Amino acid sequence: MSNQSPFAPPGSAADLEEGASLTPKFDADGLVTAVVTDAASGEVLMVAHMNAEALAKTIDSGEAWYFSRSRRALWKKGETSGHTQRVVELRIDCDQDAVWLKVEQAVAACHTGRRSCFYRNVPLGKAGAKPGAVTLAFVGERVFDPKAAYRK
Amino acid sequence: MSNQSPFAPPGSAADLEEGASLTPKFDADGLVTAVVTDAASGEVLMVAHMNAEALAKTIDSGEAWYFSRSRRALWKKGETSGHTQRVVELRIDCDQDAVWLKVEQAVAACHTGRRSCFYRNVPLGKAGAKPGAVTLAFVGERVFDPKAAYRK
Repeated sequence: MSNQSPFAPPGSAADLEEGASLTPKFDADGLVTAVVTDAASGEVLMVAHMNAEALAKTIDSGEAWYFSRSRRALWKKGETSGHTQRVVELRIDCDQDAVWLKVEQAVAACHTGRRSCFYRNVPLGKAGAKPGAVTLAFVGERVFDPKAAYRK
Repeated sequence: MSNQSPFAPPGSAADLEEGASLTPKFDADGLVTAVVTDAASGEVLMVAHMNAEALAKTIDSGEAWYFSRSRRALWKKGETSGHTQRVVELRIDCDQDAVWLKVEQAVAACHTGRRSCFYRNVPLGKAGAKPGAVTLAFVGERVFDPKAAYRK
């Protein structure tokens, strides 16, 4: 299946936007963007990417699969850490190049140990007036020890 | 500024993840992914991209600026439609290649007229067992007439 997408190729802009067929518009690397939110809190947990196989496996299984751009490999979220994601709802955007997963996240989404990958605030306006010297504010606490979770 | 980023280059993985400096990791096209949620409802409104200039303008102004990959141009959200985004909170993710904007969205985010670009559900499990023949369910209503909003 890796070299043969189970999805039909995308059609016109009108078909993509107003059609009822799932015809993902994969980019030059064969990927769509995946935004993952906590189904209970609404917090954005992470952003990742899916190739056709990852998207098909996610639809089939109701568990989140992704494609790692750095490792060039399919991966199931939580396969090492146990921090899996059960997909409660899956949506596709207007031009079908991004998906939104609402998930039940086991323990935490971020490999650094935080619940969400978005654990730092960027100050805005005067406080961030020199973008080259922005000091981030940490807003997310560690909820697990990454060294322990990823030890084989 | 277009050819000179106001941000320092990204450092090591440890610096990116645990540092308090904003050093975005722009991709080969000079972009980071931007996830935009409604500050009130938590709904994911859209996914877009920012180059260094768009990110710096967003930080400076507290209003959302993006970079259009198709038009290869900087754009301010709402510059044509009036559907601007006031940024309530801006976060950066662990490896600093994605940002999360919580915004106050004027009228609607999607150019098709819906509040969110994610107005279609993808059925999961048995209902979506043949990914090549998935029928999407529309869950978002039009809240404005795109023909009127984008008429010059």
